[in-house]
Amino acid sequence: MLNVSVLTDPGFCPHSLDKYGSIMACGNGYMGIRAAHEEDYTRQTRGMYLAGLYHRAGRNETTELINLPDIIGMDVELDGVNFTLLSGDILEWQRELAFANGELRRSVVWRAPDGKRYRLESRRFVSLDQLPLVAMQLSITPLDAATQAVLKTGIDATQTNSGRQHLDEISVRVFDQQYMQGVYETQDRASDVVISAFCQLSAKSDSCFTAKNRRLSVHHSLTIAKGDTVTLEKIVWVTHRSDKALSQASFAHNALADLKVCAARGYDALLESSSYAWKDVWRDARVEVDSFDHQDQIALDYAVWHLTAMTPAHDERSSIAAKGLTGEGYKGHVFWDTEIFLLPFHLFTRPQTARSLLRYRWLNLAGAREKARRNGWPGALFPWESAASGQEETPEFAAINIRTGTRQKVASALAEHHIVADIAWAVVAYWQATHDDAFMRNEGLTLLMETATFWMGRATEINDRLEIHDVIGPDEYTEHVNNNAYTNYLAWHNVACARRFMAMFGREDVGFTQNATRFLTRLWLPEAGSDGVIPQDDTFMAKPAIDLSRYKAKAGKQTILLDYSRAEVNDMQILKQADVVMLTYLLPERFTPQQCAANLAFYEPRTIHDSSLSKAIHGIVTARCGDTEGAYAFWRDGVAIDLGDDPHSCDDGIHAAATGAIWSGVIQGFAGMQIVEGELHLSPRLPAHWRRLAFPLRWRNATLRFTCEREVLTIVTSAPVTLTLWGKTLRVSGHQVCAYKDFLAPINGTATTEGRHDA
Amino acid sequence: MLNVSVLTDPGFCPHSLDKYGSIMACGNGYMGIRAAHEEDYTRQTRGMYLAGLYHRAGRNETTELINLPDIIGMDVELDGVNFTLLSGDILEWQRELAFANGELRRSVVWRAPDGKRYRLESRRFVSLDQLPLVAMQLSITPLDAATQAVLKTGIDATQTNSGRQHLDEISVRVFDQQYMQGVYETQDRASDVVISAFCQLSAKSDSCFTAKNRRLSVHHSLTIAKGDTVTLEKIVWVTHRSDKALSQASFAHNALADLKVCAARGYDALLESSSYAWKDVWRDARVEVDSFDHQDQIALDYAVWHLTAMTPAHDERSSIAAKGLTGEGYKGHVFWDTEIFLLPFHLFTRPQTARSLLRYRWLNLAGAREKARRNGWPGALFPWESAASGQEETPEFAAINIRTGTRQKVASALAEHHIVADIAWAVVAYWQATHDDAFMRNEGLTLLMETATFWMGRATEINDRLEIHDVIGPDEYTEHVNNNAYTNYLAWHNVACARRFMAMFGREDVGFTQNATRFLTRLWLPEAGSDGVIPQDDTFMAKPAIDLSRYKAKAGKQTILLDYSRAEVNDMQILKQADVVMLTYLLPERFTPQQCAANLAFYEPRTIHDSSLSKAIHGIVTARCGDTEGAYAFWRDGVAIDLGDDPHSCDDGIHAAATGAIWSGVIQGFAGMQIVEGELHLSPRLPAHWRRLAFPLRWRNATLRFTCEREVLTIVTSAPVTLTLWGKTLRVSGHQVCAYKDFLAPINGTATTEGRHDA
Repeated sequence: MLNVSVLTDPGFCPHSLDKYGSIMACGNGYMGIRAAHEEDYTRQTRGMYLAGLYHRAGRNETTELINLPDIIGMDVELDGVNFTLLSGDILEWQRELAFANGELRRSVVWRAPDGKRYRLESRRFVSLDQLPLVAMQLSITPLDAATQAVLKTGIDATQTNSGRQHLDEISVRVFDQQYMQGVYETQDRASDVVISAFCQLSAKSDSCFTAKNRRLSVHHSLTIAKGDTVTLEKIVWVTHRSDKALSQASFAHNALADLKVCAARGYDALLESSSYAWKDVWRDARVEVDSFDHQDQIALDYAVWHLTAMTPAHDERSSIAAKGLTGEGYKGHVFWDTEIFLLPFHLFTRPQTARSLLRYRWLNLAGAREKARRNGWPGALFPWESAASGQEETPEFAAINIRTGTRQKVASALAEHHIVADIAWAVVAYWQATHDDAFMRNEGLTLLMETATFWMGRATEINDRLEIHDVIGPDEYTEHVNNNAYTNYLAWHNVACARRFMAMFGREDVGFTQNATRFLTRLWLPEAGSDGVIPQDDTFMAKPAIDLSRYKAKAGKQTILLDYSRAEVNDMQILKQADVVMLTYLLPERFTPQQCAANLAFYEPRTIHDSSLSKAIHGIVTARCGDTEGAYAFWRDGVAIDLGDDPHSCDDGIHAAATGAIWSGVIQGFAGMQIVEGELHLSPRLPAHWRRLAFPLRWRNATLRFTCEREVLTIVTSAPVTLTLWGKTLRVSGHQVCAYKDFLAPINGTATTEGRHDA
Repeated sequence: MLNVSVLTDPGFCPHSLDKYGSIMACGNGYMGIRAAHEEDYTRQTRGMYLAGLYHRAGRNETTELINLPDIIGMDVELDGVNFTLLSGDILEWQRELAFANGELRRSVVWRAPDGKRYRLESRRFVSLDQLPLVAMQLSITPLDAATQAVLKTGIDATQTNSGRQHLDEISVRVFDQQYMQGVYETQDRASDVVISAFCQLSAKSDSCFTAKNRRLSVHHSLTIAKGDTVTLEKIVWVTHRSDKALSQASFAHNALADLKVCAARGYDALLESSSYAWKDVWRDARVEVDSFDHQDQIALDYAVWHLTAMTPAHDERSSIAAKGLTGEGYKGHVFWDTEIFLLPFHLFTRPQTARSLLRYRWLNLAGAREKARRNGWPGALFPWESAASGQEETPEFAAINIRTGTRQKVASALAEHHIVADIAWAVVAYWQATHDDAFMRNEGLTLLMETATFWMGRATEINDRLEIHDVIGPDEYTEHVNNNAYTNYLAWHNVACARRFMAMFGREDVGFTQNATRFLTRLWLPEAGSDGVIPQDDTFMAKPAIDLSRYKAKAGKQTILLDYSRAEVNDMQILKQADVVMLTYLLPERFTPQQCAANLAFYEPRTIHDSSLSKAIHGIVTARCGDTEGAYAFWRDGVAIDLGDDPHSCDDGIHAAATGAIWSGVIQGFAGMQIVEGELHLSPRLPAHWRRLAFPLRWRNATLRFTCEREVLTIVTSAPVTLTLWGKTLRVSGHQVCAYKDFLAPINGTATTEGRHDA
């Protein structure tokens, strides 16, 4: 078993309840559960979400991921005193999420306000092998005297998304005095949710069930002798369905039957099964580093944990929410984050999952076509924010403008069109890494064609060329500009790839090809100046720049908006994230190393990095430009987005894309992996803090394992693979050790591959 | 100014937060606000309700009083520590509701976990002279060192009724950087709610507004020097409307204008105006006792406070909810409690309000007729539970049955038909006390006719007489019986009064009169046996009795249902409340004093008093039977329902009827007031604990004031009145002093009235 690390919550603090609730959330791609404590706190937000289970709660509201009835809450009363860590004293504290098997554990010794001490231990996990399964245990040991304990738990459907209720309670039932079941239906009647729970106490107790005000509960009362430990075990089965072929009663009945099978196995056996599934994840995806800072390994394990927990690999009708399944931020919507920041991880570890994520877009083409049509354009205009239906889900209003007293309109859905090209980019990357021709034929070409068609309609004939006007690039501090470099280059890439792959797969359409060729010839691509700097858009270079250091010191907090209005920010060289740097990251072949470096040098001082997506990309480009230590600093800043000291940075869920960036920062940054002309390139350069970096990689039909050490790179592959190391192409099979000096010492003339073939 | 008492909350306790939240709730009949603390607690339920503002939140749900967006919550952070009394230490504590002016105040000295001490004081009131107005102040004084304080408050629409959301957020706005406004609409679009709030800090601060996730807030950050006091003043204007003649924008604009006028006046001036209105209430309704136990006076002030706060005197389309405007118990529905337990107080203090409560029923006749029609009966069958529409609102299901695992059906709506006769009884009582002929002509006769018609159709021809089958009397432990004595006698009274008043007001209808006469002649009225005991129903006397002492010791808790199923309880002589005792209370003229005493003696041992309505009525009947000390014991038990030690008896709202019973227990019990043959009778007998009892009473065109002392009764009247004292009729005018001995000493032969006339 790999020595996967453990994420710890250093101590109970009311301010950081929601931070740890997010970063320690458990999940399996089907379901996510925030790491709330069993006991309630006013500043603690509970949350359980099912991937793809969205609903709109009322007028003026946005479709959102439903916060389901709570099953985690357990009310504990000891000799009449309500257990809460706000009162009394915490004498011992340990809380950790064990990535290896997915178990979240807490052990506390608590001295109640009445002076009596208790040990309370809890464990829980969301099963990775049986997706609807959650299991929990709570143990109580009175340390000083016998105690009269009352435990209350059940299914609590008073839960809302900040007051928005999505579910009608259809029925609550108790079976065999052991099983509770709540049947709920979304208020639009489209989906059913059935939550079935088994509760058993390890000692005899007086128990009674109540069902009132959307709470179905069991109360256990018992006396626990001093030193005795009593454990409450709770096994829960959470299912939903939108297909109503089966009757609701049969659906609920089946859920109960499934729960009974699990309940009979018990917590430990269920955990063992789930652990095996996690073992496979770590085998296929774990990135190991030997760093002077142990936090680096934790960050990488944290990333893979959440990249697994957030991704609905089981369901191609769902994709990854911007906060994964860890919170309600961004309403659980799907953004470009999925294709640009998250898909690479899956592509190079479990390509089937990457395929499923692209199928999600393909299945939602109708909504994208409809959005284009409604705006007078051909092809497919994917929604800026997407949920289950594929319709545009971006909320109409954002924060309140205190000057006017009104809320500001959100412009992203109207103009942040680059998402169309981002999806096309991901389709191409997927095919390059997999050579999955069947996908390209069935879904890929359609996606490329429809997106390319959009751009050909979207461009405007002006100045004797084609331009793309009135867009917002990834940099959301610069709105409604013409010829945004990122957008224009990506659109060009989109159309070029559509033309190329149609030709490659024998699907040439004369009209389309002619249009595409014309577009590619005539689309204006902002040109680098003599200094190599590409203007971000038509007006950017003419805007004044200001000293951003005080805002950069608080990157991610958008403090600039406290001093300037959005309109004022828009009129200065102030970037949330740097579009051109992003562009050089995605299409490295189009730019010379000198251009990449020049743009990084020009734009970085003008970038506040208020987007959580910003620093990671800067880090990768910095690494490619040869500044490994600079890249490491960016990478560490990216890690700190959710794992840093700010107790509120991820209250409403982790930054999903940032976890992808932790992985990418290492694999594409320090390991230097990129696809160049369709082929796999690596050029590892470890930061000084690191002695060793090892990671698996899937590339077409091969499973590779790279181990980068100070002097040598060891490659193990399941099948022969052609790859380019530090610019030198070689064919690798079996087990091969490459000495850096042979590649990186041009003084010696031509380097040769000295690897041993052990296959 | 009368020396009106103060209700105190003896100390902070997590278990009793909701109890004091209910009993210290503020209100003005238009709006009620639970006495939640400014800071949040997980076991604290916030609540703000507007009389008559009901909505049904989804399928399988019941129409309920909407828990509105919260305005009371204030988040206080002092040097980064969240103010909560669960942590740190409470060095001083005072919390009280001043009945005289309606102000709820708290003053605490708190030592934060970091050791620093602060004084926090808060005050609030709901205005009695401007119904939509609430005003609050929160003051902070750092006692040990300067503090960095952050205060956060606003309009929080995440509030739900146990997870049921009723309101869509239509817009949130900030005006002039001082005024916040949230516009909400019920999800069925029938009603708008506009909440407008003004917030001002007494010191300069950094402030900012946020609007997110249904929370519109202002955050103030400032440093407070040691010893300085900073006060946050918040003035709130809460309006709603169902009539949409005006545009929503104009409606909201008007609310803002009204708020601005109040904000300009400020807390103290607004409080003074409201105090004047309360002064009138105490003048017209206060009952004063000089008791050895100070709690007796508090209980009486408490009763008048809530009888005022709960009663929508301003709106005849609303009536009184079973929990007033203090909580969500019984969904805010209107029961027979209003007519039988609450109307007497209003009738004898502010008869216009009693009229308004009867108009509510009259305005809802259509629903009652519809319910009768749907069940195949003529006339009007008023709903067992009523809200705004007059439709039957009783929920279909009650608690879960753990044996079957299913929920039990609620039978009340199907068979608890006595409410029809209860309303008729109240109509007659109203006319007797007011001689309001206009009301009787316009609404009263219709109500009497329609209810009488129902009974004539409801009775069954059997056994050569008319019987009323399959009903539930007030005693809900005995379901689906035939010839329930309470129901049959009240139905008879209903038909008899209808016939009498139609004749009196020249509205005779030959057919109706013939039917009524036939009904009155032939309806079976369960007869007293030789022992004077009237059987509760056809089968009651044949059922076995068991020793109820252990259940009576826990009266109100329904502990019998832990040992027996409802069906088993139904088959024994086990009463929740005693129907026949209730009957002798309502229709005293129909029974001899011996019969009243015999039934009390027979039924009381068989009665658990699990209904909060039970003991008060037993107390009055006990007093009438001459056992004043027994009556006092019952009365004290009735007081303890909400004011007693049980920390959870009124978590979901006070027992509204019990407050009416506190008043009635004194006026109808110890003062012996009753209407006999349409005339006012009194026969005061004070319990040993009391030295003096004084109270005002409205009787027709006169305002009377009675002062009962040990030896004499003093009467002051605004107009000449005929009344019967201890069985002797006299004419009183001006100021009259009556010596008890002249009435109660039959040994002296005939008593004479010796009063002095001072008019």
